[in-house]
Amino acid sequence: MFKYRRRVEFAETDMAGIVHFAMFFRYMEEAEHALWRAAGLTIASPAETIGWPRVSAAFDYRAPLHFQDEFEVTVEIAGVSRRTIDYAFTVTRDARTIGRGSITTASVSKSPGEPMKSVALPPDVVARLRTVLDA
Amino acid sequence: MFKYRRRVEFAETDMAGIVHFAMFFRYMEEAEHALWRAAGLTIASPAETIGWPRVSAAFDYRAPLHFQDEFEVTVEIAGVSRRTIDYAFTVTRDARTIGRGSITTASVSKSPGEPMKSVALPPDVVARLRTVLDA
Amino acid sequence: MFKYRRRVEFAETDMAGIVHFAMFFRYMEEAEHALWRAAGLTIASPAETIGWPRVSAAFDYRAPLHFQDEFEVTVEIAGVSRRTIDYAFTVTRDARTIGRGSITTASVSKSPGEPMKSVALPPDVVARLRTVLDA
Amino acid sequence: MFKYRRRVEFAETDMAGIVHFAMFFRYMEEAEHALWRAAGLTIASPAETIGWPRVSAAFDYRAPLHFQDEFEVTVEIAGVSRRTIDYAFTVTRDARTIGRGSITTASVSKSPGEPMKSVALPPDVVARLRTVLDA
Repeated sequence: MFKYRRRVEFAETDMAGIVHFAMFFRYMEEAEHALWRAAGLTIASPAETIGWPRVSAAFDYRAPLHFQDEFEVTVEIAGVSRRTIDYAFTVTRDARTIGRGSITTASVSKSPGEPMKSVALPPDVVARLRTVLDA
Repeated sequence: MFKYRRRVEFAETDMAGIVHFAMFFRYMEEAEHALWRAAGLTIASPAETIGWPRVSAAFDYRAPLHFQDEFEVTVEIAGVSRRTIDYAFTVTRDARTIGRGSITTASVSKSPGEPMKSVALPPDVVARLRTVLDA
Repeated sequence: MFKYRRRVEFAETDMAGIVHFAMFFRYMEEAEHALWRAAGLTIASPAETIGWPRVSAAFDYRAPLHFQDEFEVTVEIAGVSRRTIDYAFTVTRDARTIGRGSITTASVSKSPGEPMKSVALPPDVVARLRTVLDA
Repeated sequence: MFKYRRRVEFAETDMAGIVHFAMFFRYMEEAEHALWRAAGLTIASPAETIGWPRVSAAFDYRAPLHFQDEFEVTVEIAGVSRRTIDYAFTVTRDARTIGRGSITTASVSKSPGEPMKSVALPPDVVARLRTVLDA
């Protein structure tokens, strides 16, 4: 389990006075990338020939977040296939569950000007992420 | 069925050269709001005491969108309960499916400074939306 | 003079109930790119080796925009130097001025993995933009 | 002088591989709001009847920011009038200047459903901000 902490910024709210629902997909991604950094990895580097597009993403909303709320995003790996990683996320503020979500991401090879091609996960990525998650 | 047309703007792309995955939730919402306008409705007005927060949202990605791509978002009502509307969306570019998604939204009463409270759907909303969808 | 029409989307509002001030920089960019398309040009294509980073951007706010407002962004070229284009923008809703802004953009050569290098404007770009603006 | 630290998130980049130019206006705002919090203030609260719309905003770009870059936004008060505050911002990464910007914000009274009305700055706001800036 990996925890990412964040505060709601003004531009992330909408006229309903709460965080816009699409922002939670950015929050999940930020937590995922923080996990990768904690594992000494990056999902994007100039030398990288592997990309990580999303296969699916979902979020269930329980309670709203407001401007300046401090919240936490918990990341776990819910499953791994040969070419995809399934992440599970929980967003909480204090003891309260704000919502739960998931993202499935695939590894693809990318060459400039060519369509992305699905490839097997690089061998060490999941192992390194698990080292952080199990710590 | 209702169709909403849109073009990808530069700020909607990311360093992978494609539309950022969280943007598709905005695209679905834009299509939903265009449907409401076509039905002579608005999800937000100063006089309004009903709000429409999201219960859940999901998207499955099949192919990426790029800068300046013209695409279409098709909206349908997949289901209705006493307090919620389930929308189903398909994003296409030319004949190609870019992805499919769903949003469940609830009707709540809102008073300034008080928590939102779930209430029954206003009686005519679904009827008016269906008039557009069945046209 | 070139006119770009747009409607305010829900996610572009903030908890103050108006369009977030940073959005106006996106609106100006959208108008600029629409002008380029009208001139048969694109600021970004896979084959392109010229990029167009911003040198400066500014906006003066007169009146707010609200959800679903239809507005117009007028683009003009305020000046051209050997390596930069200065655009001037006016945002209006009905007869009312919402604000005025400017963007200066430079042409640079770009090679993957190398820093951007300022270069002279491609010879035909300004001529083609002016053809649209003077029409 | 007040310093706000931040890391570039993936969704803030565009297909040019750098932070989108409009994001710098969000970064400046985030730094402003962090300054207000450090002064025990908030620019937005449910009980608040004063709002802080922008009068103008500008940014000069010197060098780009990339994904995961850690950067710093320095905030200063460049001037104060009876109804406005002028902020000056510098964005740096390591020793390097990424850009400089400014925001002028006005204090207005706000009542639901009525247009905003410019009012004198609340007496203690600038004093409290200066206490942080001079510390």
